[in-house]
Amino acid sequence: MTAETQLAQFDSLPLDCGETLAPVTAAYQTYGELNRERSNAVLIQHAFSGDAHAAGISRETGKPGWWDNMIGPHKAFDTSRYFVICSNILGGCQGTTGPGSINPATGKPFGGAFPVVTVRDMVRLQKKLIDSLGIRRLLSLAGGSMGGMQALQWAVDYPEAVVSAIPIATAYRHSAQQIAFNEVGRMAVMSDPDWKGGDYYDSAPPGRGLSVARMIGHITYMSDDSMREKFGRRQRPKEELGNGFAGDFEVENYLRYRGGEFVNRFDANSYLYITKAMDNFDLTSGYGSLAAALARSQARFLVISFSSDWLYPSYQSLEIVRALRGHNLDVAYCEIPSHYGHDAFLLEAGEQTELVKHFLANTFKKAA
Amino acid sequence: MTAETQLAQFDSLPLDCGETLAPVTAAYQTYGELNRERSNAVLIQHAFSGDAHAAGISRETGKPGWWDNMIGPHKAFDTSRYFVICSNILGGCQGTTGPGSINPATGKPFGGAFPVVTVRDMVRLQKKLIDSLGIRRLLSLAGGSMGGMQALQWAVDYPEAVVSAIPIATAYRHSAQQIAFNEVGRMAVMSDPDWKGGDYYDSAPPGRGLSVARMIGHITYMSDDSMREKFGRRQRPKEELGNGFAGDFEVENYLRYRGGEFVNRFDANSYLYITKAMDNFDLTSGYGSLAAALARSQARFLVISFSSDWLYPSYQSLEIVRALRGHNLDVAYCEIPSHYGHDAFLLEAGEQTELVKHFLANTFKKAA
Repeated sequence: MTAETQLAQFDSLPLDCGETLAPVTAAYQTYGELNRERSNAVLIQHAFSGDAHAAGISRETGKPGWWDNMIGPHKAFDTSRYFVICSNILGGCQGTTGPGSINPATGKPFGGAFPVVTVRDMVRLQKKLIDSLGIRRLLSLAGGSMGGMQALQWAVDYPEAVVSAIPIATAYRHSAQQIAFNEVGRMAVMSDPDWKGGDYYDSAPPGRGLSVARMIGHITYMSDDSMREKFGRRQRPKEELGNGFAGDFEVENYLRYRGGEFVNRFDANSYLYITKAMDNFDLTSGYGSLAAALARSQARFLVISFSSDWLYPSYQSLEIVRALRGHNLDVAYCEIPSHYGHDAFLLEAGEQTELVKHFLANTFKKAA
Repeated sequence: MTAETQLAQFDSLPLDCGETLAPVTAAYQTYGELNRERSNAVLIQHAFSGDAHAAGISRETGKPGWWDNMIGPHKAFDTSRYFVICSNILGGCQGTTGPGSINPATGKPFGGAFPVVTVRDMVRLQKKLIDSLGIRRLLSLAGGSMGGMQALQWAVDYPEAVVSAIPIATAYRHSAQQIAFNEVGRMAVMSDPDWKGGDYYDSAPPGRGLSVARMIGHITYMSDDSMREKFGRRQRPKEELGNGFAGDFEVENYLRYRGGEFVNRFDANSYLYITKAMDNFDLTSGYGSLAAALARSQARFLVISFSSDWLYPSYQSLEIVRALRGHNLDVAYCEIPSHYGHDAFLLEAGEQTELVKHFLANTFKKAA
């Protein structure tokens, strides 16, 4: 299955902050075929650093999509039955309008002048995209981490357009600890003199700061157990060791490598804007309570968490489940046993496939 | 109780790396009186960022010591009964020789030329100090976090000199996750252009990087619960908010404040050398196994951990307890219920006091 990113252009997008982006672009990919009734569309929502390339082999890069183990013919999101869409989020750096896009007012990249965006704004742009594809109702929405926040926001903001939702390893709002980890990452970026208030697009990007930020992220995505299994205290051979700060332990080298790699594919300003949108996300906002927010939804839910995920612990998924049950909404919940920590939503394809496959099939049958 | 830091000078200290520091200084404080038999001395060992000022009110700064709730007349470490000593660790920046000290070979601060030091080196300097005070045997050694590592190393390296030891919230070696958190902190420091390979003593220190490193540390010292209780999602008043990256949430401001404050009292090179010593620390080193290492000890042990400490989880204390029990050594273990995370060893004075007080009294009685 090859995959190609397409661009959808829209005249304007009003934002929660009061500003308007005009024009605005959404980068997206689709897999499978929309049926005649337009009733088999599933929107996949990526996490913080993901992109529109969720599945298949990219025609541009030759690489598989970030959820290729879950999306494809006869996979969890079975593209022989469903029409699957994934778009890059607003504020991102993989084709959709973000801080690195040209500001029409100046002819230069927005940089620090990019307006503050919210998860609700991201969802508003996705709704425009879905409308433009002629889809009135989504059979399902699914995403892990920040993708799950978007799925929840959709179900609350566009209840008539959402038949079901699958929020995975997520929260209805960030805890102080989750905000804290993001804030340290942001400070690492903003402390890099190359950041220059966000206006670095004609010079070197703040790669050292962004790399440190990503290293922190990777620790929080793994579990104590998975790090022990993967690295333990293994060291490089003595003859390769330097002055003591050169990354003696394999885990150090791994984090440095992943940090450096991230700099080549991600924009530091997008890091700031998107993590801030995650921290500001609060599903109760405007509704007073989680119960009141979710009471707007008419969707069926499948909520998934992972036993070793300490960044988005299961209790946060259970808060969502309890609020849904309180309104007698149709909700299934599963905590999947895993050693992989938060990364499990990307790696534990087996159990997730069983859950998602049956949930989608049932939803499709009921909706027909 | 007032407290004053004293300096002990020694001609030289051989290091594990093969180099020798000459001369070397140890900064220390003492509380209470050494008895005639010299049998009531207790050595307190500070954690990563601590110093010799463990108790009382500093004559220089007017501030209480970092463990003043535990050390003093009729407190856990009862200075009306015991002679309590605390020294700043080798590689530190509070009076003991460290990377900011003058290198006699150049007449300038060591900076990046300071030799790599180990926990064993730190303990070797403490042994010199104890010897110089005329103390042949320590009634007890106690410390939390990295202080606990030193206590363990003493019990193994100088078994004849240690009657008892109280390792608190510690590990016999770091896990991959613990190394990873330290490594990100080091990278934050070393990524700051002001670090200059460690030779910044005649210019501005790498404050931005050190501040980010300390922010990471603070997250790991607290628990998810204690952060929720202390900050939740409270925000500053709207009129004070900036462009969206200005620290809207109280937890952000707190971390920024603590990061900035740390820069004023701590040396970035000490941060690097000491965290590296923690990561390299492995009590089994030279002995093949934890059991073989601890088999050398003749001490009684009181091992303490805290239920919400996810940086030094209880399973790490239990590894030590199991190895001690395997050799039929006298060991008491307690996991104290606490919401404070790793910080609990500094904050939970109540339950620790009961445990330590009786343990010391029994030890003193048995040793008499």
